[in-house]
Amino acid sequence: MTLEARWDPRDGYRVSDWEQRTGTARAGSQVWRWPQLGVRDCDDPRPAADQVLLEVLACGICGSDLHFYETDDDGYMLYPGLTRFPTITGHELCGRVVEVGTDVTDLERDDLVTVEEIVWCGQCDACRRGFFNHCTQLEELGFTIPGAFAERIAVGAKYCWKLDAVVERHGEARAIELGALSEPTAVSYHALFNRPSGFQPGAYVAVFGAGPIGLTAIGLAVAAGAGQVVAFETSTERRQLASQLGATSVWDPAQSSPAEIMAELSKGEGFDLHVEAAGAPQITVPQMAQALAVDARVVIIGRAAQVAPMYLETFQVRRAQLYGSQGHAGHGNFPGVIRLVASGRLDLSAMISVRYPLEEAVAAVERGTARTDGKILITP
Amino acid sequence: MTLEARWDPRDGYRVSDWEQRTGTARAGSQVWRWPQLGVRDCDDPRPAADQVLLEVLACGICGSDLHFYETDDDGYMLYPGLTRFPTITGHELCGRVVEVGTDVTDLERDDLVTVEEIVWCGQCDACRRGFFNHCTQLEELGFTIPGAFAERIAVGAKYCWKLDAVVERHGEARAIELGALSEPTAVSYHALFNRPSGFQPGAYVAVFGAGPIGLTAIGLAVAAGAGQVVAFETSTERRQLASQLGATSVWDPAQSSPAEIMAELSKGEGFDLHVEAAGAPQITVPQMAQALAVDARVVIIGRAAQVAPMYLETFQVRRAQLYGSQGHAGHGNFPGVIRLVASGRLDLSAMISVRYPLEEAVAAVERGTARTDGKILITP
Amino acid sequence: MTLEARWDPRDGYRVSDWEQRTGTARAGSQVWRWPQLGVRDCDDPRPAADQVLLEVLACGICGSDLHFYETDDDGYMLYPGLTRFPTITGHELCGRVVEVGTDVTDLERDDLVTVEEIVWCGQCDACRRGFFNHCTQLEELGFTIPGAFAERIAVGAKYCWKLDAVVERHGEARAIELGALSEPTAVSYHALFNRPSGFQPGAYVAVFGAGPIGLTAIGLAVAAGAGQVVAFETSTERRQLASQLGATSVWDPAQSSPAEIMAELSKGEGFDLHVEAAGAPQITVPQMAQALAVDARVVIIGRAAQVAPMYLETFQVRRAQLYGSQGHAGHGNFPGVIRLVASGRLDLSAMISVRYPLEEAVAAVERGTARTDGKILITP
Amino acid sequence: MTLEARWDPRDGYRVSDWEQRTGTARAGSQVWRWPQLGVRDCDDPRPAADQVLLEVLACGICGSDLHFYETDDDGYMLYPGLTRFPTITGHELCGRVVEVGTDVTDLERDDLVTVEEIVWCGQCDACRRGFFNHCTQLEELGFTIPGAFAERIAVGAKYCWKLDAVVERHGEARAIELGALSEPTAVSYHALFNRPSGFQPGAYVAVFGAGPIGLTAIGLAVAAGAGQVVAFETSTERRQLASQLGATSVWDPAQSSPAEIMAELSKGEGFDLHVEAAGAPQITVPQMAQALAVDARVVIIGRAAQVAPMYLETFQVRRAQLYGSQGHAGHGNFPGVIRLVASGRLDLSAMISVRYPLEEAVAAVERGTARTDGKILITP
Repeated sequence: MTLEARWDPRDGYRVSDWEQRTGTARAGSQVWRWPQLGVRDCDDPRPAADQVLLEVLACGICGSDLHFYETDDDGYMLYPGLTRFPTITGHELCGRVVEVGTDVTDLERDDLVTVEEIVWCGQCDACRRGFFNHCTQLEELGFTIPGAFAERIAVGAKYCWKLDAVVERHGEARAIELGALSEPTAVSYHALFNRPSGFQPGAYVAVFGAGPIGLTAIGLAVAAGAGQVVAFETSTERRQLASQLGATSVWDPAQSSPAEIMAELSKGEGFDLHVEAAGAPQITVPQMAQALAVDARVVIIGRAAQVAPMYLETFQVRRAQLYGSQGHAGHGNFPGVIRLVASGRLDLSAMISVRYPLEEAVAAVERGTARTDGKILITP
Repeated sequence: MTLEARWDPRDGYRVSDWEQRTGTARAGSQVWRWPQLGVRDCDDPRPAADQVLLEVLACGICGSDLHFYETDDDGYMLYPGLTRFPTITGHELCGRVVEVGTDVTDLERDDLVTVEEIVWCGQCDACRRGFFNHCTQLEELGFTIPGAFAERIAVGAKYCWKLDAVVERHGEARAIELGALSEPTAVSYHALFNRPSGFQPGAYVAVFGAGPIGLTAIGLAVAAGAGQVVAFETSTERRQLASQLGATSVWDPAQSSPAEIMAELSKGEGFDLHVEAAGAPQITVPQMAQALAVDARVVIIGRAAQVAPMYLETFQVRRAQLYGSQGHAGHGNFPGVIRLVASGRLDLSAMISVRYPLEEAVAAVERGTARTDGKILITP
Repeated sequence: MTLEARWDPRDGYRVSDWEQRTGTARAGSQVWRWPQLGVRDCDDPRPAADQVLLEVLACGICGSDLHFYETDDDGYMLYPGLTRFPTITGHELCGRVVEVGTDVTDLERDDLVTVEEIVWCGQCDACRRGFFNHCTQLEELGFTIPGAFAERIAVGAKYCWKLDAVVERHGEARAIELGALSEPTAVSYHALFNRPSGFQPGAYVAVFGAGPIGLTAIGLAVAAGAGQVVAFETSTERRQLASQLGATSVWDPAQSSPAEIMAELSKGEGFDLHVEAAGAPQITVPQMAQALAVDARVVIIGRAAQVAPMYLETFQVRRAQLYGSQGHAGHGNFPGVIRLVASGRLDLSAMISVRYPLEEAVAAVERGTARTDGKILITP
Repeated sequence: MTLEARWDPRDGYRVSDWEQRTGTARAGSQVWRWPQLGVRDCDDPRPAADQVLLEVLACGICGSDLHFYETDDDGYMLYPGLTRFPTITGHELCGRVVEVGTDVTDLERDDLVTVEEIVWCGQCDACRRGFFNHCTQLEELGFTIPGAFAERIAVGAKYCWKLDAVVERHGEARAIELGALSEPTAVSYHALFNRPSGFQPGAYVAVFGAGPIGLTAIGLAVAAGAGQVVAFETSTERRQLASQLGATSVWDPAQSSPAEIMAELSKGEGFDLHVEAAGAPQITVPQMAQALAVDARVVIIGRAAQVAPMYLETFQVRRAQLYGSQGHAGHGNFPGVIRLVASGRLDLSAMISVRYPLEEAVAAVERGTARTDGKILITP
């Protein structure tokens, strides 16, 4: 499934030399107009020396895939980040190795793998500090280079993680679907366990937004021994999914004030970890700030072109801290997720609400825009 | 149940002025001879202004209670630490408030509570850094001041933690027993989640020794989302308990090499967290050192008058670290344990293998010396 | 020097039961009107059993002392925090022990000490986690209980820290003044080295605001090996002080954009640690957000009843974090400061710009309101 | 200067398949016999696409260079680690770029750079967690691949760090020598500031061994604001260097007990950070264990095929921790060192005790074996 769009910078957006030269937009929503999704025949990619060629077995639809497709009144796509079109979209994949580049030593034909979306260079200053998610020469699978809503994809071997242990426990069929959930789970794993260094078992965790990312955060908080996991979500269907994945209580923030609910559920002590996965910090962060436990942490995962009004005095009085989180690469995130899934302690399969074949991928994206599903998978 | 013993310092042990003046031995096994346990009538204690008087509802027998009772060939008790006798022993308790000191504001009659064993002053330099377990004016409940193998005990209000939330979920009868497990659980909670700052979910954890402390460590590692929790223990009965509490695999170290088992179970990558709860570091730590994952942590909980031979090069090659752990006070340990138990995510009741009434407490201690039980409780 | 003010809650401010009962305002600026400073004769205080009586040798004027004195158009004091009047103000003191309470064992007559301003209970849940600055039964020296713009003061022994080591190195006369700087220095020490766990030597540090707190932050950043310490401050005099204390470059933010300056000084990489000590987060934090290094930290020390607009996406893209900081108690802050001063590696005496005798304390406060001094000391 | 040695595994050393196949010894001292150093003519290396060719301007002699040269009674070299001979030795270099590989974008001809010795792959599991020093496909400059006791060397661009900022401050001549000190400084920087996360300013630091690594540790501890920096070293010359670099007190451990000295210097409180840079943990670590402050850290940098007897109870009583440290790659170590040197806060040039031209490199190594110098530099 390819996405085409017209390079038509908005009045007032200053296209940088680098953007002009590379045809890449740093702020997609300022540049790309009239996006068109379509399923087309392409030549099979060829793996470079340090790549493998994968047969794609499953690939999930991410919120950014929806924002590629959705436009504002002027026809500009909603997605605000790094993009280069046309390209093949899709980046939450499970695949099987069908060909191995000449320099690759640790993967073999038939290995079942999942893949990082962040294509980090390993050479810039950020990468040399181990901060791969902040690579200054970043490419992104399905955003700037061809992704996995496709039959075949060529990817760098160093971005692949084997799923043997998941197959061993759950069998191959389930491992394929669980594998396709690795990327969005690793996004939350990074945000919860690496940005702040996790939480102490028994801690109270609040997750704002129970879309795909929020749901993985809920599952992880449960698996890591949170004392309470409270979810705030406006969609009825997603509140049900949150409960299924172990949230101890779920609420519609349109009906009741999150701050008051947290105050009550914690008998006035506040919540220890607050996770922004709603992409609406201007609304959610002020709610969190009213229910901070002493030493509370706030983690921002959701992306939003929004300014949050913050009364920082509250962060002082409560000894609180806030962490911005981006990406999933490095820090043992993928192997952590895979071990957790292989152990049976984390099973997020309930969040997969529907599957579509690749030829119906456009319809799948359309369905996604209702934002009532957990995860929609594209399978061959 | 009181413990009496004769102050008879071994030849060569230099009694310090402080020890002489206070009648306290820093190294019990060097000083106390011919210990005698007995259940006797005592006057009820009176709570000081900052204390509460508790009716003891349950109190567990700890390994140190056994070492008070057991002697070497010369009749010296085995317990090597801080002690002042005669006193009433017992420190893993659940009790009900029956009287409240005049300055106490946050406890009321009938509150069900569990109690810290570490009686920290709150004023010395260590306490003022928040390191209450390293208080330089330490007293210990049941070691140097009267403990809880008794009908009544007076304790400082600041060492008490309410069990309301546990009662709410599990009912009072279960809350009393679960409450009595709080102290040994908090010892492991402190060691696992505060000394090193926990482990990432999915990590591989090895627990050496499945006595009461090892069992709480196993339960906590499971609750916090370890990918594997492997236990090494020589007693068949305790290996069974380890399995019941969720250990993913249990082994008799007399039959198979822990290092080899860990290598195999981790496909050569090593284990991420190693917990010494066997009190035999001279044997266990060298085994751990052969199976360290990159960035592995070793935590020492078990107490032993032993020198461990350490090949530190291995700690360099594997980027490993070692933490000594002592106590359970501070750092949110007790409230963390209580919330975890109240949430239903940690249920260690299976480790309670037998209960004795207070009048048979001596027989209970005798039974304990076989070291095949999980936890032995003394109840009224 | 006592401060009197009239209890006259603003229309619309809801006085809580606790405030009514105790005569304490949580939000001083909402309640206290027409404050009056005056130097008066008082009876000498008597030390309680756990207190010492100090002869005050020097006491600095803090920004909050100015906000007690300054009022808005309606005559309400500017200070927004916890207060109970009338009381004696002053809390940055050095004193000599002249009498020792009956239970005090670690202080003696003639000891030279400095004192924490935070009077933490040691018994509430926050204190039992070691978070003394967030004590739920907090009293504050010179805010709610009698302070140190006085000849004598009685304070809890556990809030005192001996200055022997400083005397040993610098002599008593200098130790008295350096001792009086301990409290504001400990505020910055806590904010820089405990809230975020410090910075790596060579890191780039930006301090916004070079009032007394900002100046101590500058001195500490220099002492801890920052690669650059840049200060932004509107007062010419204070910019000079910042340079004297080692700032590598100082700027008037009214003349040049801090974000641009930091971008240039870091060759586009951004600054690693940003310190808000201006009490104007609505202005400074957005500047910081434009010059965040990857993994940057922002620490909020300055107090302000202001909402800062935060574009949190930037915190995600830069892997940044923000910490609210309050207080100076616990965590080894005071002993850390004292050792640093005793070592000679931190000498902030240059920031003392003027001294006043106690009888002229009101004039000293008046002078302070110009906000061009470093530290103003009141001495006997 | 090349090193040749005979592959002659000791009786009882099991050569692995990998060792046999690659000609690399994991344990050099078990395999290499009769090492021969010599300065020879070689062809200039050619930079690969991702490499640069450097003109070597200065290169320091490391302790391992001495252990390559020194042998036991059977003629086996003393160096116990990873090695493949013959090769050119030398890895503490400063060089100028003279040719740039085709894929290199961030270095240019004439750039002055220093270089990491750890040649990490960036693709193995350890590298993908950011633990480059624990790369499972490690090569080492001057150990397994040609090093920098040479006129030219080809190195991967991603291992190079520009010295512009050092040149700017200190001029090129000094920058070349300071640059050659970067690698041993980064080894200590990593050990002090990344393995444990540094120390709080004012902390007491003890450095065991004042050879080149110990000297860099001393300089860094001073720069980072340690309250005391105590050095233990048997060589008179090196004790003098330690003082010159800022150690607050230096001692000959053959004359006085380090444990007693530390007890006295800390008035019984113990030292906060202990650095093993003597390569004699069997002697030094038991000394450290007797003088641990509460929450003390022990860092092992020195390499030694020795078993240290450890009484771990002490680590429990003192809440202490121990960290093995290896390498210098990643974690911002090199840029941290460079910024510190560029800021003028760290000047280790006093430790350079003598310079030799390349043709006399063998004599320089011979001199080094006396172990009384700071750093010996080889310059063109």
